[in-house]
Amino acid sequence: MAAAKPILYSAWISSCSFRVRIALNLKGVDYEYRAVTRSDPDYEKINPIKYVPAFVDGGFVVSDSLAIILYLEDKYPQHPLLPQDLKKKAINLQGLVDGKLGSNESLHIVWHYIDKGFRAIEKLLEGCDSKYATGDEIQLADVFLAPQIHAGVTRFQIDMVHNLLSVIPRCIIHDRAAAAAELGKDKEEMSRDEDSVVVGA
Amino acid sequence: MAAAKPILYSAWISSCSFRVRIALNLKGVDYEYRAVTRSDPDYEKINPIKYVPAFVDGGFVVSDSLAIILYLEDKYPQHPLLPQDLKKKAINLQGLVDGKLGSNESLHIVWHYIDKGFRAIEKLLEGCDSKYATGDEIQLADVFLAPQIHAGVTRFQIDMVHNLLSVIPRCIIHDRAAAAAELGKDKEEMSRDEDSVVVGA
Repeated sequence: MAAAKPILYSAWISSCSFRVRIALNLKGVDYEYRAVTRSDPDYEKINPIKYVPAFVDGGFVVSDSLAIILYLEDKYPQHPLLPQDLKKKAINLQGLVDGKLGSNESLHIVWHYIDKGFRAIEKLLEGCDSKYATGDEIQLADVFLAPQIHAGVTRFQIDMVHNLLSVIPRCIIHDRAAAAAELGKDKEEMSRDEDSVVVGA
Repeated sequence: MAAAKPILYSAWISSCSFRVRIALNLKGVDYEYRAVTRSDPDYEKINPIKYVPAFVDGGFVVSDSLAIILYLEDKYPQHPLLPQDLKKKAINLQGLVDGKLGSNESLHIVWHYIDKGFRAIEKLLEGCDSKYATGDEIQLADVFLAPQIHAGVTRFQIDMVHNLLSVIPRCIIHDRAAAAAELGKDKEEMSRDEDSVVVGA
């Protein structure tokens, strides 16, 4: 009997879910998608802290997007998301923009955190002369950045290209062909999910 | 010429700094300690987002406590903090209690997050029948939990043993000999630091 597919409990509006979907897509993992909201009482049985996403593999539950992605990195080594070089690896793991902004935050608050976060990331990536954030393949930093930039542009109408960024557009916005192929897979899921405020982790 | 010691920019009140000091102590890394506050303008040159701690190794700056600890894990393999088993590794990486509570938070808010976080961690650790959180050695989950429990007890006067916990005391509070040896090293540093509100990461 074939092993059951792993399950991703996800919400379209959650950047944290989004980054896990990108990682799953990049690694080509065949998984079952289940849209959830935090108000779903059954979801608390899966993930007691109720954040999305949660990844269930053979009954084992992993929550927290970074923990899930690091689990995927070990279990599915294809398309590695972390470089071997310790310094580049550390850059991928640090300074990741806080993904816990809900859609009910005021634009002022959102702008403050996005501005602060992305300016710090710009500093972090200054020495990286590569196609994507820290290399010529999409890696962990890109997987975290892409949904944040996407949310900044589409949900909060922030003109990132003109107002904020010099390094990041080079990495992602101006060279989004590969990422778009992954992001595109989300369209169907997004149309199926409910529109709700979700706190991710 | 001997290589310069790595430098830890730290603040005694920051749980995020505390967990990095524990990891450095467990791994026996010889490092230079520099107490900082977020209001120090020179610190922004080291870490543009100004969170503490920051770890500087030969001019390379790593911020974010988890990124620092994962960097240490690769660079100093002695006393490994992550188990080889993927599931136990994932437990160590997930559900870590949010360490960003400042000392100016109201007790009500602190209690809410600590209660919620620790109850979720209790669920997470239910299947782990070991001396510490996920094994018989101190690992990443313990390194994250110890400063949170310490802050809950000492800064917020929360009676964790009677009010909250069943699993966690088994792991840490009731068996704190090894952790105490590490925590003890912080006393001198704590007396040297200024008492200030610090946001950690």
